Amino acid sequence: MRNFKLTIQYDGTKYNGWQKQGNTKNTLQGIFENIISKMFGEEIEVFGSGRTDAGTHAKGQVANFKCKTDMTANSIKDTINKYLPKDIVVTECEEKELRFHSRLNAKSKDYLYIIDNGTNRDVFMKNYAFRVDEKLDIELMKKATSYFIGEHDFRAFCSNKRHKKSTVRTIYSIDVSEENGKIYILFKGNGFLYNMVRILVGTLIEIGSSKKSIDDIEKIFKGEDRKDAGFTAPACGLYLMNVYY
Amino acid sequence: MRNFKLTIQYDGTKYNGWQKQGNTKNTLQGIFENIISKMFGEEIEVFGSGRTDAGTHAKGQVANFKCKTDMTANSIKDTINKYLPKDIVVTECEEKELRFHSRLNAKSKDYLYIIDNGTNRDVFMKNYAFRVDEKLDIELMKKATSYFIGEHDFRAFCSNKRHKKSTVRTIYSIDVSEENGKIYILFKGNGFLYNMVRILVGTLIEIGSSKKSIDDIEKIFKGEDRKDAGFTAPACGLYLMNVYY
Repeated sequence: MRNFKLTIQYDGTKYNGWQKQGNTKNTLQGIFENIISKMFGEEIEVFGSGRTDAGTHAKGQVANFKCKTDMTANSIKDTINKYLPKDIVVTECEEKELRFHSRLNAKSKDYLYIIDNGTNRDVFMKNYAFRVDEKLDIELMKKATSYFIGEHDFRAFCSNKRHKKSTVRTIYSIDVSEENGKIYILFKGNGFLYNMVRILVGTLIEIGSSKKSIDDIEKIFKGEDRKDAGFTAPACGLYLMNVYY
Repeated sequence: MRNFKLTIQYDGTKYNGWQKQGNTKNTLQGIFENIISKMFGEEIEVFGSGRTDAGTHAKGQVANFKCKTDMTANSIKDTINKYLPKDIVVTECEEKELRFHSRLNAKSKDYLYIIDNGTNRDVFMKNYAFRVDEKLDIELMKKATSYFIGEHDFRAFCSNKRHKKSTVRTIYSIDVSEENGKIYILFKGNGFLYNMVRILVGTLIEIGSSKKSIDDIEKIFKGEDRKDAGFTAPACGLYLMNVYY
């Protein structure tokens, strides 16, 4: 038995997220399992580093699968790419030790969120950024990020209603930058709860447009209530950038 | 009567080009005439600086229309943008003298063509660049461009079979550059024939992949036969960048 790690990019516009769920069609996991199972003539499960929501993009999603084969990692990559649609690509295939698991061994992740905040909407970013017409106060948003950095209970910034597991996560850094009317927000952390990045972005946008103040952040953390935090920013602006092991 | 000049960007992926033609739906001209006629309560014709093919994009298409109104140019811009779909935007609206005509007065145009030639295909450029897997020889392509610059009869580089009008055009410059696996080819000229940029790009790609040699270019010009030139590169890589007056 051998174990292969795939690094994957996808334009998530058309897809129902990474994880196959019951009858939900058009998931990335489903597409990969279909191709890889056919390649090796047996049912093969493909493990992703984590779910990505419907419409979310990836520049560095990681997955792994096990199979018996004599193929080189490189020819596995080329063969999968031949069968993938044009909006999905494997950028790397690497053999790993058998115990490697893309989700269980993930140590940290980077997510990028792009807001289109230019004078005119960017028609080419329609599916790749969240358009906000109102000019946002980036300096205020930058200041606000410092309240999220470090270890916190992010229960109020999570869409899950039942919290069976810990909702404590550590954010290492949040970088806000601006170029050509786009605002880029890069999150680095040891893990992110369901919708957490999108809710943090929604909260930052409400701060940048004076609907919330920086002083509200502490109250939101203390209240532990999803309703107090900002809206869930749309999936089209979100990119899973890197998974570290 | 007043005359307004519009500068327009569009993601051409979904559209059948600029010009309305018989029953062809989903043309940019049709969409603009529909919105502007409704705004002013009368049939208004919108003149574009030229056709763009189905699937071709624009970062600086220019159009003009005449109407009686008290609206400012800026509020016309905002109103049209409110009714346009998200993949089309007016970036500028300016009042011009009555004799201004976006096509008849155009002095020169810039077109950009983007080739995705990186190691891995760029899933985010699926509709915005032409993917070529084979590594192209950019130095050879740069050398070849010099044979197209200046005044030439581009009859062999045109898809029109009947040439009622002159097929002589002047190309001022062709700049080939590379960044992150993308090849950018910028054409500046006093005018371009039907499919001319796409056929020039197809010819440059055949030179860059050694299917044609630089010596073939002179023969193609002399033969005046479309069949001798390269293939018509797909519309998705083409952008109308600027129209100058």
